[in-house]
Amino acid sequence: MIFRGLAKSAGLPPGTMMAVGDEPAGPTRISIIDYDQDHLKQVDSADESTVIQEKASPRVTWFKVEGLGQIEAISRLGEIFSLHPLVLEDIVNTTQRPKIEEYEDYVFMVLQAVRFDRENASLASQQVSLVLGKDWLLSFQEGKRELFGGVLERIQRGRGRIRKLGVDYLAYVLMDAVVDQYFVALEAIGEEVELLEEELLENPSEKTMHRLHKLKRQSLGFRKAVWPLREVVAWLTRDEIGLVHSDIQPFLRDLYDHTIQVIDQVETLRDLLSGLLDIYLTAVSNRMNEVMKVLTIIATIFIPLTFLAGLYGMNFKFMPELEWKWGYPVVLAIMIVSVAGMLFYFRRKKWL
Amino acid sequence: MIFRGLAKSAGLPPGTMMAVGDEPAGPTRISIIDYDQDHLKQVDSADESTVIQEKASPRVTWFKVEGLGQIEAISRLGEIFSLHPLVLEDIVNTTQRPKIEEYEDYVFMVLQAVRFDRENASLASQQVSLVLGKDWLLSFQEGKRELFGGVLERIQRGRGRIRKLGVDYLAYVLMDAVVDQYFVALEAIGEEVELLEEELLENPSEKTMHRLHKLKRQSLGFRKAVWPLREVVAWLTRDEIGLVHSDIQPFLRDLYDHTIQVIDQVETLRDLLSGLLDIYLTAVSNRMNEVMKVLTIIATIFIPLTFLAGLYGMNFKFMPELEWKWGYPVVLAIMIVSVAGMLFYFRRKKWL
Amino acid sequence: MIFRGLAKSAGLPPGTMMAVGDEPAGPTRISIIDYDQDHLKQVDSADESTVIQEKASPRVTWFKVEGLGQIEAISRLGEIFSLHPLVLEDIVNTTQRPKIEEYEDYVFMVLQAVRFDRENASLASQQVSLVLGKDWLLSFQEGKRELFGGVLERIQRGRGRIRKLGVDYLAYVLMDAVVDQYFVALEAIGEEVELLEEELLENPSEKTMHRLHKLKRQSLGFRKAVWPLREVVAWLTRDEIGLVHSDIQPFLRDLYDHTIQVIDQVETLRDLLSGLLDIYLTAVSNRMNEVMKVLTIIATIFIPLTFLAGLYGMNFKFMPELEWKWGYPVVLAIMIVSVAGMLFYFRRKKWL
Amino acid sequence: MIFRGLAKSAGLPPGTMMAVGDEPAGPTRISIIDYDQDHLKQVDSADESTVIQEKASPRVTWFKVEGLGQIEAISRLGEIFSLHPLVLEDIVNTTQRPKIEEYEDYVFMVLQAVRFDRENASLASQQVSLVLGKDWLLSFQEGKRELFGGVLERIQRGRGRIRKLGVDYLAYVLMDAVVDQYFVALEAIGEEVELLEEELLENPSEKTMHRLHKLKRQSLGFRKAVWPLREVVAWLTRDEIGLVHSDIQPFLRDLYDHTIQVIDQVETLRDLLSGLLDIYLTAVSNRMNEVMKVLTIIATIFIPLTFLAGLYGMNFKFMPELEWKWGYPVVLAIMIVSVAGMLFYFRRKKWL
Amino acid sequence: MIFRGLAKSAGLPPGTMMAVGDEPAGPTRISIIDYDQDHLKQVDSADESTVIQEKASPRVTWFKVEGLGQIEAISRLGEIFSLHPLVLEDIVNTTQRPKIEEYEDYVFMVLQAVRFDRENASLASQQVSLVLGKDWLLSFQEGKRELFGGVLERIQRGRGRIRKLGVDYLAYVLMDAVVDQYFVALEAIGEEVELLEEELLENPSEKTMHRLHKLKRQSLGFRKAVWPLREVVAWLTRDEIGLVHSDIQPFLRDLYDHTIQVIDQVETLRDLLSGLLDIYLTAVSNRMNEVMKVLTIIATIFIPLTFLAGLYGMNFKFMPELEWKWGYPVVLAIMIVSVAGMLFYFRRKKWL
Repeated sequence: MIFRGLAKSAGLPPGTMMAVGDEPAGPTRISIIDYDQDHLKQVDSADESTVIQEKASPRVTWFKVEGLGQIEAISRLGEIFSLHPLVLEDIVNTTQRPKIEEYEDYVFMVLQAVRFDRENASLASQQVSLVLGKDWLLSFQEGKRELFGGVLERIQRGRGRIRKLGVDYLAYVLMDAVVDQYFVALEAIGEEVELLEEELLENPSEKTMHRLHKLKRQSLGFRKAVWPLREVVAWLTRDEIGLVHSDIQPFLRDLYDHTIQVIDQVETLRDLLSGLLDIYLTAVSNRMNEVMKVLTIIATIFIPLTFLAGLYGMNFKFMPELEWKWGYPVVLAIMIVSVAGMLFYFRRKKWL
Repeated sequence: MIFRGLAKSAGLPPGTMMAVGDEPAGPTRISIIDYDQDHLKQVDSADESTVIQEKASPRVTWFKVEGLGQIEAISRLGEIFSLHPLVLEDIVNTTQRPKIEEYEDYVFMVLQAVRFDRENASLASQQVSLVLGKDWLLSFQEGKRELFGGVLERIQRGRGRIRKLGVDYLAYVLMDAVVDQYFVALEAIGEEVELLEEELLENPSEKTMHRLHKLKRQSLGFRKAVWPLREVVAWLTRDEIGLVHSDIQPFLRDLYDHTIQVIDQVETLRDLLSGLLDIYLTAVSNRMNEVMKVLTIIATIFIPLTFLAGLYGMNFKFMPELEWKWGYPVVLAIMIVSVAGMLFYFRRKKWL
Repeated sequence: MIFRGLAKSAGLPPGTMMAVGDEPAGPTRISIIDYDQDHLKQVDSADESTVIQEKASPRVTWFKVEGLGQIEAISRLGEIFSLHPLVLEDIVNTTQRPKIEEYEDYVFMVLQAVRFDRENASLASQQVSLVLGKDWLLSFQEGKRELFGGVLERIQRGRGRIRKLGVDYLAYVLMDAVVDQYFVALEAIGEEVELLEEELLENPSEKTMHRLHKLKRQSLGFRKAVWPLREVVAWLTRDEIGLVHSDIQPFLRDLYDHTIQVIDQVETLRDLLSGLLDIYLTAVSNRMNEVMKVLTIIATIFIPLTFLAGLYGMNFKFMPELEWKWGYPVVLAIMIVSVAGMLFYFRRKKWL
Repeated sequence: MIFRGLAKSAGLPPGTMMAVGDEPAGPTRISIIDYDQDHLKQVDSADESTVIQEKASPRVTWFKVEGLGQIEAISRLGEIFSLHPLVLEDIVNTTQRPKIEEYEDYVFMVLQAVRFDRENASLASQQVSLVLGKDWLLSFQEGKRELFGGVLERIQRGRGRIRKLGVDYLAYVLMDAVVDQYFVALEAIGEEVELLEEELLENPSEKTMHRLHKLKRQSLGFRKAVWPLREVVAWLTRDEIGLVHSDIQPFLRDLYDHTIQVIDQVETLRDLLSGLLDIYLTAVSNRMNEVMKVLTIIATIFIPLTFLAGLYGMNFKFMPELEWKWGYPVVLAIMIVSVAGMLFYFRRKKWL
Repeated sequence: MIFRGLAKSAGLPPGTMMAVGDEPAGPTRISIIDYDQDHLKQVDSADESTVIQEKASPRVTWFKVEGLGQIEAISRLGEIFSLHPLVLEDIVNTTQRPKIEEYEDYVFMVLQAVRFDRENASLASQQVSLVLGKDWLLSFQEGKRELFGGVLERIQRGRGRIRKLGVDYLAYVLMDAVVDQYFVALEAIGEEVELLEEELLENPSEKTMHRLHKLKRQSLGFRKAVWPLREVVAWLTRDEIGLVHSDIQPFLRDLYDHTIQVIDQVETLRDLLSGLLDIYLTAVSNRMNEVMKVLTIIATIFIPLTFLAGLYGMNFKFMPELEWKWGYPVVLAIMIVSVAGMLFYFRRKKWL
């Protein structure tokens, strides 16, 4: 799982398209949503000619590509929109870190959406690539999980800001949807952390440690997905490109704030997890201490008694005590007194 | 508790107002304080028309909103002051990190006031949002706890600087009140740390560890509330906006210094807490050591004696020592000498 | 002790003067030293009229204020020199971090002098505030400890650079005196660290750990006093104000170097202390190991012997060995051989 | 291995060529590949005159130097291309960190290629130096391992971009080949980490710890090779030199992204490894705990029984119990009950 | 040793010369080397008049001062070359951190040369101060150890670049000689680390820990000597002064690279050492584990046997087993079976 797939395309010429990633690459399906304030047209499985035709539409046109399995289809799309070969390579190689790149006619963005799978407490990431042109937007999704259902619905219902504003707002809304997923994942992880914390306080075991370790690893992965996003959004906010209108700026700033908030939380998560490790280690030490105390108490009480019993079990001919009438009761009494003394000592030391 | 509420608004369109936060959102109440050096007018539960009327007042007007439960009321306020939908969203979603945002006619600030609750040693935070206009200021408070009582009193009594200076000074004074709360919280936490330290030195238990862990978590929360505040105040100090007059600058600089001081103290707090963890761990090790020493001393003294007793408890027919008259006293003497030797050895090793 | 006094002035209007600090605020005493290359005039307990009169003097005039107990006296001084209310607040609230602030006619600086008290191994800090005007300098000292005796003497003796140069050089000399104190404190702490190190190597105890912890806490306090000083001196070096002449620049640069050196040493101190903690922890582990070895050796040697003795202490009717003439010697021989074997085994394992 | 070879050239005049490095310096072999879109000429073991002649070629000319053993040959090359003596020194002293240096007519780059040797789990690095001129490129490789076979093949087959673009693209392709090697190494290390993780969870031993330590050391080495590369590529991307054409920029940006990705992964690797150390330490603690529990259970059960048996093994004349008919069975019953009680206690404490 | 000497000059007026440092200050000896490409003149123990005369020489003149014991001699030199009093103070107070300072007619540099003393594994540092003028260079060395022998020889032999280039190249060569010493020290430390590593893997003892701690402390000192050097060299590279010619720039850049390399290695060293500490701690834990296992195995095998023997050593009248003919063999058999069972159990748990 670690660093897997990184080396797959090593040695190939730069710009070679090759599907690399976690999720099995499904067949490629292109949906087109073409809209402005008054019109809405949706094509679900568009073929090449429809794409070419819709590209020319003066309205906002969203080309939603799902599944990266058919490299030729994506390659054809790249030709239609004159995308750089390296852009195409990055779209299908889904191990990219989030980034933004400016080309002459478009801006290319890579995001990593995440989902926390509660059952096996692991984080699945899914690459989302966006290509933002003058009045069109291409979105590429790695897997089958639908990320943009809510956005689609808002466009269809035609209410709110989305139909009134341009393609830059659409790009923002898609990015916002990805960042919203982070909050969902964080909340799920937060619950997992709380469960773990309870387990640690009540009944820590080596299994708890392994869950803790796993969660730590997930938080590393989360961090890698989120950190570079800050720069991506900041880049957009700086408005160096002509593609983002000034009325979108407050939204981007808001998105930036959310990104920072996610990063903050991920850092907090790491601190929390290392705090849990400390708790675990001290719990282990404390239990060891408790075990040792039991052993010490038992041994300290009985070993001297056993010696005393052994003493009068010796077979010397001349042992006057053995002949005494009160020998046995006196020894018994000594034993009881010594036990009482020991117990008192342990109580004073707070071992009991 | 961790990361709770973050995901609540995920999937909703940006700018959707939704109350999210720790404190239950109470009913919304708007007070208006309208003043200049000579006049003072106070309306306690203002309705919409009063708000519109007072907004037009040329004097400094402070709209003090408490309780964020009635979204419609706040939404109406937003319309009256033409606030951006994202501003309204941030006001009611009280999980924001401190930030400052410039809009055309106003500046929007989010702060997080904190209070340390000594009883369950936890930190409660309360979001305070400020909207600073040309001659008016809107303040929004999440909960019922009064933060600005002292400020109100100073305005009413009419002494000091506050009635002579503008709305920018009012904004500063409110921020200062929030930062003052940090110092109060820090002092309370400092006392808690000292109690913990004493407990650690005298009688550390697993419960101490849990209190320590809890305090660490609180300090993480504190840090999250304070760190971004630095940038907020620095932004104001840089005077990029026309809303802050130059005679307020020394006050802002002072506020900035206080913010830095709080951050310093929070970092110191973290260092102190990790130092306490070290103390705890070494205390546990030391107690283990002590337990082991007791066990070892007892075992080392009595196990050889028991063996000796066992030796002369054997039932061999031909054991000349058993017949000797001085056998028993000699064995006793050997035992006493060996015990004395052991004790001497332990004393030299400083185990006793 | 931790964070104490921070909250005292919370809730008061900004600019309220209130004595807050560690050292009990003594009565306020103002000395005036008025000098140039040829003249020297010294007034020891100056009253208000003398101050006003001397302020007008064209020579360098140093107003040396000791003890911050009489708020009214300091407040009057503030009026005479038209100091900002926030400056006065900072002068008497002696929990400030070092800082520098530029006002129209003067520069205000706060420093924290430190002294390492060897007896209880704790660091005492004393706030020093400087107000640097065109040809006058105000210095405020929190407590009774004399910091500037050497400087005074140099002025009185009239030799060296000090009488030839202006008030900016005087300010530098006072700051230099504060920084020199850091080196003295560092050397004292260094000796304490060495003592601790020796104790750790020879005879570590829980008390050592507490001293270590205390020293760590002192180093945190030291750091807080020194870090911001860098910026203060750098600010002066950048020469953005007209109050510092260019011939003072090399001296300020030198002061800056010293500050950096102190910061370096404080960081080194922290590294050293955490290294000592590691030594302590390993020493504890090693001693535990040693204790366990003693126990294990004793138990491993005697438990089998005791069993053997017990075996032949059984009262079975038919135990042929008991009747043998050489039974007892053979058993003794077996015992001796087994002890020798054990000892050989432990020696090979390097436990002995 | 650590820091070895660093001091070899100490004391020599700057610019002295001296082969220093890990791999034994083999004989020097110069291949020349001279190409443009239509022509291709390859000379495998070129002599000096061929080099001089090909240098004058107007096409892209790649001088591929393998083996740094013959200092004179490299020195001659330096003269032909008028390289600075320090450049020549850096080429043969293969302990350089990656860097880029601009000279009047050429740019000099040092890279460190790495390979992870799975058998002994160690990282071998090989220095690659590139000198990029107007229409020629010199590449120097330390050892025999072929790094640029794929590039050579692509040139020979004449397909793709490489034959169409200039010498700057060739330089990029060579750097890309080096960075691709990092991904291969990372994937191999990732597998090693996973093996280690499994071993840790199943059967941790001191050997595992040593492998962990070794891997950590390798990751330190990896980091040293990769970190400075970022600056090298960023320098090229900034396009301060006239040697890189603007159509190469997207490729350089891509290379930069890859470099950042490698750095990210190396940091992740370090986090993973320190997480593994935590797992190891807790595993050791847990096993100790388990051992202690076994000891404590056995001792706690049998020591009291042994005492009881010893008690009735005493030889006192007057011990009424010994005469009782049911004495023995009663004692046996007491023993059985006490064992059952102990077991119940341990079960409740979850020790069994 | 720690922070020693820092406080010596506290309280003295700035610019007071006072010899402070590790190495005993020997008598001061001034050598003069005056050269250009064709001439070479060397005076070994120059007096004042020679110095004044040679200063006027138009060739490159190197005033090599060894031993800082005679403050008056150095003070006279300062007058001749009109050095600032603070420069003179820094030259004789050899606890400076590396720095560079620009004065009107010269540049003043402080370096710290280091040497690793293998015998007691400690790092000795020696302050080297350089004053670079238009055509002269003053070098001051603290102790007797010759640092610049190689440079002197190169000048005398008259080969290479040194006689052809100016005084700026000489300054570079001296700095390079100091940096070369770092590599020598690093290599020596690297060997020490390897020895330590071997010792840790084979036979760790508390002494190893102390050596580790000492090495860590040395690495702290090394770091303090090297870190600031980066800025010194960078300052020279930026060429803000007219004293360094452009043909020296490649050499300074090379020196800068070396400095960065040393810093890298020192950081690596720190990582290595903390890795070794981890190894030590786990080794200690593992040995404890081993000790505990031996104890547990012995106790677990023999304690039950001893109980059984004790059982049949009881003196009850009515114990039927004692009368049985096969009682003894049966008990022996039970014992053997139980030992075998225990051994099997321990083997399965991998304790044996």
